[in-house]
Amino acid sequence: MKNYTDLNPGKRILMGPGPSDVHPRVLKTMATPLVGHLDPDFLEIMNETREMLREVYQTKNELTIAISGTGSAGMEAVLVNLLEPGDKAVVCINGYFGERMADIVRRCGAEPIILNAEWGTIVEPDEVKKVLADIGKVKLLAIVHAETSTGVRQPLEEISRLVKEAGALFVVDAVTSLAGIPVETDKWQIDAIYSGTQKCISCPPGLSPVSFSEAAREVMTQRTTPIQSWYLDMKMLGSYWGQERFYHHTAPISMSYALHEALRLVLEEGLEERFKRHKLHSKALVAGLEAMGLEMVVAPEYRLPELNSVYIPEGIDDVKVRKALLSDYGIEIGGGLGKFKGKAWRIGLMGYSCSRDNVMLLLAALENILQEQGYKAAQHGIIAAQQAYRK
Amino acid sequence: MKNYTDLNPGKRILMGPGPSDVHPRVLKTMATPLVGHLDPDFLEIMNETREMLREVYQTKNELTIAISGTGSAGMEAVLVNLLEPGDKAVVCINGYFGERMADIVRRCGAEPIILNAEWGTIVEPDEVKKVLADIGKVKLLAIVHAETSTGVRQPLEEISRLVKEAGALFVVDAVTSLAGIPVETDKWQIDAIYSGTQKCISCPPGLSPVSFSEAAREVMTQRTTPIQSWYLDMKMLGSYWGQERFYHHTAPISMSYALHEALRLVLEEGLEERFKRHKLHSKALVAGLEAMGLEMVVAPEYRLPELNSVYIPEGIDDVKVRKALLSDYGIEIGGGLGKFKGKAWRIGLMGYSCSRDNVMLLLAALENILQEQGYKAAQHGIIAAQQAYRK
Repeated sequence: MKNYTDLNPGKRILMGPGPSDVHPRVLKTMATPLVGHLDPDFLEIMNETREMLREVYQTKNELTIAISGTGSAGMEAVLVNLLEPGDKAVVCINGYFGERMADIVRRCGAEPIILNAEWGTIVEPDEVKKVLADIGKVKLLAIVHAETSTGVRQPLEEISRLVKEAGALFVVDAVTSLAGIPVETDKWQIDAIYSGTQKCISCPPGLSPVSFSEAAREVMTQRTTPIQSWYLDMKMLGSYWGQERFYHHTAPISMSYALHEALRLVLEEGLEERFKRHKLHSKALVAGLEAMGLEMVVAPEYRLPELNSVYIPEGIDDVKVRKALLSDYGIEIGGGLGKFKGKAWRIGLMGYSCSRDNVMLLLAALENILQEQGYKAAQHGIIAAQQAYRK
Repeated sequence: MKNYTDLNPGKRILMGPGPSDVHPRVLKTMATPLVGHLDPDFLEIMNETREMLREVYQTKNELTIAISGTGSAGMEAVLVNLLEPGDKAVVCINGYFGERMADIVRRCGAEPIILNAEWGTIVEPDEVKKVLADIGKVKLLAIVHAETSTGVRQPLEEISRLVKEAGALFVVDAVTSLAGIPVETDKWQIDAIYSGTQKCISCPPGLSPVSFSEAAREVMTQRTTPIQSWYLDMKMLGSYWGQERFYHHTAPISMSYALHEALRLVLEEGLEERFKRHKLHSKALVAGLEAMGLEMVVAPEYRLPELNSVYIPEGIDDVKVRKALLSDYGIEIGGGLGKFKGKAWRIGLMGYSCSRDNVMLLLAALENILQEQGYKAAQHGIIAAQQAYRK
């Protein structure tokens, strides 16, 4: 037999599009010995997790739980539970994850009405208004709050109003926004929302917090066709998380421990403080990058503090830079995805990764690597970041 | 804000139908800081995991990976990838999990041909032969190798031969068998097989090892309709695990660390040794239970060593006994599921939970609790178990 040695992955600072670094308290919690998935002690952990998820999602939604899969499983859960074959769904696409939603809508046998916007820009409410006026009855409109492929923050309130006027459900992807920027599920009248644990919550990947409004639950109750996924059937999942405690599948115990601890950390810091922290470090990072002559992808008013997309300067080798960051400094940043492949880097400042030391180290490292590649533009990234922090 | 305290679940000995106790080395490994899901160090961990899964599954199948969900996600992955609307699938049902397969087959828009057998007994090859002769062309036959609801070990070789003669794919649920009893994927000509991490592999729940034969892959390639699940699309998952390393979803890093360590433990012990250990402790447990006058559910030749189903004696309160085991001894055993609810207990001896100390403690505890409830039958469970160990 081949000798498989102890796991010993390299030391990393995770500043890509996720996963982010995980707080030592969360790592430690995962090493807690297991109890069963129907153990009274575990049911209490589920109850507390649900309460904390409601706080983070800013919702009173009864059906607020963590799906036993990553953020993409949450996306699929929301769409397969709400859509039936033949339904129409408006899907707003201004990046990679909008496209994924459209793909899933098609697999539901539903018809996606695509509303395209340029990658790196927002979806304009006026465009939404036109589409909704054109197509008549539509089951839902789905939109990405924080596009992980571009770094765009999509304003939601006005679009929500239009969707409600059209009598449709409002579905939001909050994978990269939750716990990094405000996500006001009830105030913005969101009917179904999903996220991942590995971005601004800084828990390892593996679970997907979701929340459904009463209107969304009513739509599920009124379905005439079966939900095509057994694993993601929200009616069955709801009765495991609810009073009935009806066994569905064996819950991921250790990951549930981790999420509980990560949510505690979020609430101990406080949502407002957490949002402020993300803004602060992003501002300093952007000041540093721009001082180095780099150009941000997204206009200032729509930039996500937790995901900073920056164009790769001409003549610079994308892969070489990222390899050097990883091998010489242990820093992971993200390459471009889809249309931005080879054109942009994605620098994450998510949750536990979002800190002053990480900003400073990345700027120092990137400056050095760019210089080695012959990059000539003004290079005072760290000074600019220092000034931004002093302001 | 409510004060959420440190996680501090009760001390448990997990002797139910899963999850089983997790080895301290696996728990410790989960506390390893994260690397990214496309990090070269993580890709190496995936490669090694795939190699170890092939050893455990006793297969050379290229498409052998861990799905990012629990065992039930593996079940769904296998069925949604192989079935198209209108297909016929024979589903053998002799317990709860056979019924779940039929449910998923229906959600695929396929037609399940149900072959029922009494709960607690095996599915007879003759019955399979009859069904296959009756219905003509069928896409696959699905069967549970180790029924977690009853404790039955289903012999597979003869049925496999019949399925092949009928030109169908052979699909096997190995959730509770893998790493507890022999699972010879290639020798038994299994086309698609799935398991969970939380049973005899003794890793926390959250991943599902699956393996597909070349014939099964060919069927997926020939599909004319899209796979209804994006999250479980094996073509896309295959290209993330394969040479291409094409990003699909963010892999559950910490759970992948855990599975790697758990598989190392399985292979360090050796499959044959591991199977012998499960047999040994089950024999002692059964000797003890029978000496106490309890009756096993399954005939000796078809009993699973890792899941021992025993009838609850008349006049004994199921829930009271299990509550006392949990509160006075920290021991979890399983209640009956489905038709066996209130009628049988399920005592797991899986992976790290399968040990002499656990057998002895459980017998001592159960004897005591039954006596407190007025149970009068002969009670020399521990003596019988001691004798069984000495043989």
